[in-house]
Amino acid sequence: MFPRPFPPISSNASLYESVQIRTIESENLIGWMKSFVLSVTPPGNFEYLDSLSHHKCLKSITRRAPDDEDVAIDIKFAGICHSDIHTVRSEWGSTAYPLVVGHEIAGVVNAVGKNVTKFQVGDHVGVGCMVNSCRQCTNCQDGEEQYCLSGAILTYNSRDPKDGTITQGGYSQYLVVDQAFVLRVPESIPLDKAAPLMCAGITLYSPLHHWHAGPGKRVGIIGFGGLGHMGVKLAKALGSEVTVFSQTNSKKELGLQLGADNYVATSEPDVFSQLSRKFDLIINTVSANIPLELYLSCLRRDGSLVQVGAPEHPLQISPFSLDAQRVGIHGSMIGGIAETQQMLEFCGEKQIFPEIETIPASYINEAYERVMKSQVKFRFVIDVSTM
Amino acid sequence: MFPRPFPPISSNASLYESVQIRTIESENLIGWMKSFVLSVTPPGNFEYLDSLSHHKCLKSITRRAPDDEDVAIDIKFAGICHSDIHTVRSEWGSTAYPLVVGHEIAGVVNAVGKNVTKFQVGDHVGVGCMVNSCRQCTNCQDGEEQYCLSGAILTYNSRDPKDGTITQGGYSQYLVVDQAFVLRVPESIPLDKAAPLMCAGITLYSPLHHWHAGPGKRVGIIGFGGLGHMGVKLAKALGSEVTVFSQTNSKKELGLQLGADNYVATSEPDVFSQLSRKFDLIINTVSANIPLELYLSCLRRDGSLVQVGAPEHPLQISPFSLDAQRVGIHGSMIGGIAETQQMLEFCGEKQIFPEIETIPASYINEAYERVMKSQVKFRFVIDVSTM
Repeated sequence: MFPRPFPPISSNASLYESVQIRTIESENLIGWMKSFVLSVTPPGNFEYLDSLSHHKCLKSITRRAPDDEDVAIDIKFAGICHSDIHTVRSEWGSTAYPLVVGHEIAGVVNAVGKNVTKFQVGDHVGVGCMVNSCRQCTNCQDGEEQYCLSGAILTYNSRDPKDGTITQGGYSQYLVVDQAFVLRVPESIPLDKAAPLMCAGITLYSPLHHWHAGPGKRVGIIGFGGLGHMGVKLAKALGSEVTVFSQTNSKKELGLQLGADNYVATSEPDVFSQLSRKFDLIINTVSANIPLELYLSCLRRDGSLVQVGAPEHPLQISPFSLDAQRVGIHGSMIGGIAETQQMLEFCGEKQIFPEIETIPASYINEAYERVMKSQVKFRFVIDVSTM
Repeated sequence: MFPRPFPPISSNASLYESVQIRTIESENLIGWMKSFVLSVTPPGNFEYLDSLSHHKCLKSITRRAPDDEDVAIDIKFAGICHSDIHTVRSEWGSTAYPLVVGHEIAGVVNAVGKNVTKFQVGDHVGVGCMVNSCRQCTNCQDGEEQYCLSGAILTYNSRDPKDGTITQGGYSQYLVVDQAFVLRVPESIPLDKAAPLMCAGITLYSPLHHWHAGPGKRVGIIGFGGLGHMGVKLAKALGSEVTVFSQTNSKKELGLQLGADNYVATSEPDVFSQLSRKFDLIINTVSANIPLELYLSCLRRDGSLVQVGAPEHPLQISPFSLDAQRVGIHGSMIGGIAETQQMLEFCGEKQIFPEIETIPASYINEAYERVMKSQVKFRFVIDVSTM
């Protein structure tokens, strides 16, 4: 498609400009953003993006000074999640440009507020998709802050109740977060590999944990990418029998090597009839719309298909494919803070890490394009020292 | 629409003609069927039906002689379920014409096979949607015969493993069923009101029971017809707080009278925002495609929307409406034999009965039309003595 003319400025810019940045302690922190390019890109119009990929820029943002409950973090690594790309492209509703994305954050504590008891300077820590929540509602009280009834405060593109600014994410050198939303990274997990656990890791761990994956359970993982490969490793480590559903067998050898008991190519005939009613739990990590009824037919009675990918179009499901064995389709979204900490301890103990490709900051646009083309094994992690 | 020419004979007739009726003991039993009219009716083409409604006919069928495990039943009452209409019209796949439908059956035992221990002549009994199953698979072993992995043998339009015939349902005077699929009707339940419990009753009781409706739980019932009104009565008797979602308030007074704590008209503004995140369980009894996302937004974290109506078109659901609170959409299909017996005991004890309109056999076509137009409060029951 022929590239559109370069837009003057995002129509959302006023939203950002109205933000008052209240406190100034750590100047000269560098993030970078693609907002003025991406804000006007129609969804899926990748040619337009490609043609403008030289328009990346570095930008300076200011973090607030840590308050009494805050932890200031030197970010060392930031994973690249597909959600970053959706947000940068305003595919998930309004994005407040300019914006720094990134919610798979690992780093080292460099300062703590006076009431901070959980962390001290030098600790290895992580931050995931949330930086705050109401802490009052029944879901927050249950440790399920991701389902906060007031809406959790996301790591970027949310209004921060502490200072009224729009939250800015992890593609940056420095971050200030309330201690309640900072995670301890066990020393047994390298920091670069810890980063993707903050989203990809917990996104798979939480449904596996919630729906009781473990010995004697058969788990299917649809898709073998950044999320899917973590699903395989975690489900296997939890004791389940794991099958990968992939379009082709191109990554079969790798899948078996990383822990899958079976790896099936869904493009081959008879796959679904052979796997009819074999699974207790199937987790769909694919963001495209796929024929869910075929997967529902693979569930045992009372089995669950859990959607963690977010397709653009509505899911379409025949009611008969649900009532045939009282199966269900569920959503699941990251995990609570306590569950995320539990996942990190589990990964440290079992030495379960994501497969990553570490990149310099300057590679971000190429990395996005490769994510879109599924040309990454399996997660990009930005080395923030290259910024 | 202009009526089509009267068809020569159903193209499915050969299926029926190939059936060997093996045993002959009870001749001159009367059922009736509409097959030659309905087999060629396009779905929804009610004008065509109406124009031919004088073509009802009485027909004689033959039941097998009871074997050692069988119970022979004098049918007293048969409820009319929407599924009967779908089947008669071949809307749910191939129907083996001519066919006697009816799976809400109540009657009196008139003979038993020599190994029958559970019943004796004169007992009040019922038969629902199933007359057999494999009894070997894990689901049958768990008492969930409705999910038999070989497929339960349905009360009509199934191939009966005992004699190879196509099963014929309850719009008839006499029935022979294996004792394992016969239900005991408590004396405290009038037989006419027992009939609809066999399908409408268990269809609602089973999901209420499975998803733990009870004190402290808020239950929503979508639709206030044959299924919905049983949902209200049962959920209330189980101790839940019950809300009816209906299109209008036309049946509100009746709904409150029958036990609903709240009755809301979904056509009114702000209903869904006022009920946001209020429910633990919502059961959808409506067979039309409705905007499920509005109802999903009424579920609390980990709540379930259970589909017991069977819309013609696939359900359409945004993945975001599922992951927002980890809610799920499930199907549920009648209940197992043990659970159905449990439901009957519960209804007898609590005096929970359906609201019925008893009709003579000759009224069947008019009754079908009124069911289609939702002009029944709330279930038609055929008085078989009028046949």
